[in-house]
Amino acid sequence: MTTDTLTSDELRDAWPVLSIDERLEALDALATREANAFFLKLSAADQAGLVGASPPEQARTWLQSLPPDDAADLLQQLEPELRAQFLAALDERTRREVGALLAYAQDRAGGLMSPRFARVRADATAQEALVYLRQQVRQNLETIYYGYVLDADQRLLGVVSLRELFAAPGERPVRELMHAEFVAVQANDDQEKVAHVLAEHDLLAVPVLDANGRMQGIVTFDDVADAVQKEATEDIQKLGAVEVLGAPYLQVGLWKMVQKRVGWLAILFVGEMLTTSAMSRYQDEIGRAVVLALFVPLIISSGGNSGSQATTLVIRALALGELRLRDIGRVLRRELAVGLMLGSILGVIGALRVGAWEAVFGTYGANWLVLALAVGISVLGVVAWGSLVGALLPFVLKKLRLDSASASAPFVATLVDVSGLVIYFNVAWWLLRGTLL
Amino acid sequence: MTTDTLTSDELRDAWPVLSIDERLEALDALATREANAFFLKLSAADQAGLVGASPPEQARTWLQSLPPDDAADLLQQLEPELRAQFLAALDERTRREVGALLAYAQDRAGGLMSPRFARVRADATAQEALVYLRQQVRQNLETIYYGYVLDADQRLLGVVSLRELFAAPGERPVRELMHAEFVAVQANDDQEKVAHVLAEHDLLAVPVLDANGRMQGIVTFDDVADAVQKEATEDIQKLGAVEVLGAPYLQVGLWKMVQKRVGWLAILFVGEMLTTSAMSRYQDEIGRAVVLALFVPLIISSGGNSGSQATTLVIRALALGELRLRDIGRVLRRELAVGLMLGSILGVIGALRVGAWEAVFGTYGANWLVLALAVGISVLGVVAWGSLVGALLPFVLKKLRLDSASASAPFVATLVDVSGLVIYFNVAWWLLRGTLL
Repeated sequence: MTTDTLTSDELRDAWPVLSIDERLEALDALATREANAFFLKLSAADQAGLVGASPPEQARTWLQSLPPDDAADLLQQLEPELRAQFLAALDERTRREVGALLAYAQDRAGGLMSPRFARVRADATAQEALVYLRQQVRQNLETIYYGYVLDADQRLLGVVSLRELFAAPGERPVRELMHAEFVAVQANDDQEKVAHVLAEHDLLAVPVLDANGRMQGIVTFDDVADAVQKEATEDIQKLGAVEVLGAPYLQVGLWKMVQKRVGWLAILFVGEMLTTSAMSRYQDEIGRAVVLALFVPLIISSGGNSGSQATTLVIRALALGELRLRDIGRVLRRELAVGLMLGSILGVIGALRVGAWEAVFGTYGANWLVLALAVGISVLGVVAWGSLVGALLPFVLKKLRLDSASASAPFVATLVDVSGLVIYFNVAWWLLRGTLL
Repeated sequence: MTTDTLTSDELRDAWPVLSIDERLEALDALATREANAFFLKLSAADQAGLVGASPPEQARTWLQSLPPDDAADLLQQLEPELRAQFLAALDERTRREVGALLAYAQDRAGGLMSPRFARVRADATAQEALVYLRQQVRQNLETIYYGYVLDADQRLLGVVSLRELFAAPGERPVRELMHAEFVAVQANDDQEKVAHVLAEHDLLAVPVLDANGRMQGIVTFDDVADAVQKEATEDIQKLGAVEVLGAPYLQVGLWKMVQKRVGWLAILFVGEMLTTSAMSRYQDEIGRAVVLALFVPLIISSGGNSGSQATTLVIRALALGELRLRDIGRVLRRELAVGLMLGSILGVIGALRVGAWEAVFGTYGANWLVLALAVGISVLGVVAWGSLVGALLPFVLKKLRLDSASASAPFVATLVDVSGLVIYFNVAWWLLRGTLL
């Protein structure tokens, strides 16, 4: 592909399929200002790829153009030697700021924050604070829409918004305007907590404090908007029984993709082997009535499907805080009721299927009615059981302090497949004794 | 529960399990200011419940306290008669604004927007614009951090941020400072589009234009943060083969819950009936070698699981814009390769299982090696096929302009169950002819 004639928009479209050399070539062909704007919009992983492959001078320019929090994210994607080398090339202020951020994991408040926030003095008047904020506007601050009041030990005393400064009489001191009961997060809080706090209080930015209450920086809403998306992506991937990819689909190498998927797949496969063991206990019954085997996939999958529904709903409700551990009793009662209703509906459909085939093709002979009954009752039992297990599992994992999103739909389906077989063959044996069996 | 002694925080915790009467009683017991703050934080559905059950005077006070966009959301939750009645009770300005918003669906830009944005004149100086914004600060505007420049026909000419006004020399005219190439959305754009635009450009608010380019209002980042969460929830529910609940889990009535789940479950159940038909074609083979039936759940579920993985990854990548329709060829080649690798690993495990049981229990007799081979090859084929189908389906749905998230994991599993059976019995027949069969 010739990439040196692409416009910025065309480049954005073509980006995922370009090699690193093509990307550099295409950026090189853009006007400097456009290329810089394009670079700023890229993911940290993409930025790191470009910086790692560029001549030192260009790499340094790009790194220096990023806000400290984004520069830290980029450096975290590089090999340790390369990271140290680039860090050393930064100007002193940026190096100090970025170094502090690198001390925190990328998914913590401390790793997301920017140290460039606006400070105001408590004894300044509203008018003075406004003039001061206006002077700081060229300082590359993350936002000037909040002013933070700190004491001599860098402890946060209060927060005042530019809007409040605007609304106040000019001579009113900041001390009287600021919110001394502000919302803040700890540097070690994870990004989901930060996202939740920002959304709950409709804030543009939230201050980040260290263990001693000293202010370290702010996390802004746009840093966290990405985090919310990412969190949902991770939960969705776990629900599909995939380990979190951590990168766009097409950018994960083939072998890496196999690694991310083989673990759960192998666990589920070994678990599902229990169906073979379970069925072999009924081998004689199947030998006498092969027809029994024909309904096995139908019956066990109905339990797996109702289980997937229940587990999906409960996992998402837990993630959103709609459900808590203590709701378990209520949820299980609900799912049992819903499962019995769903199972009755499917059970009737299943029994009708047997009746219909008998009426049209004469498939099942004299015992069709008992067979229809066995299928219907088994489906009822398996669907209700599936709903119950699917709802229970996320609670159990959460109680054990494991990630409840790991109760993936396939995991629940596998659990229910094994127990569903036992339900089915017991119902069949009980109903068909003396006739088919 | 006695609810008239709860603090605001306790009330928030207890909220989901309280009846409407208990909720009113608890709010009544809070200080007015606290009760109002609490009310403002509730979901539109919860607010509507309270307003609908309150005496007219209290209902009107609450409604009037909401910004127009939130008031419109609330009214949209009420029955038409009640909605008209409450709308009539609002003051004239609010009634006009809310009425305009009600013309749009709640998940469109027009339904999310607030008509209360700050206007600035193009020929004003930066200093004049700042003074003017400062005067408007008490006007209950959604944000004063952006000023919008309109012409006489209410068409948007440009946007300038408060920060830019701050940074500019005071005598510079707004005309020279404003961005004439601004980002905007159409009133009919859906909320996902709006969320994407805000995040992509790191904006606090985006202007909403009607079909004639006239400015109707702005959507702010906090309106859309909720929309992003909601969208992820909807995708997750669809992946679990549940129709979108549209309300917190515990607030969906039992019968409603059955309705949301029975549709997909019944479709999947009827689809899975094809497994019964498929297996009955091999009834004679099963009769001769019951052992074949024992591996059916193991083999078809391995295809369902690999299919769930592929469909989950592809659906999320499509939703995030990481993949587009034209990537289909690349994705299918990748999934075939990944599927063959995964299938080889699982196939070997499956064959070893047969060998191990034979070695320890002598389960399968003289033909154990061919049986092991049949199981291993079938698993390889079914897993690769599952990955391929799972990846293909979301593309097909998207191409047909259907919602690609409907390619739920259970849906893919059902498809693969049926075809997996055919693969298995054909491999078995081909390998076991003359020995077991």
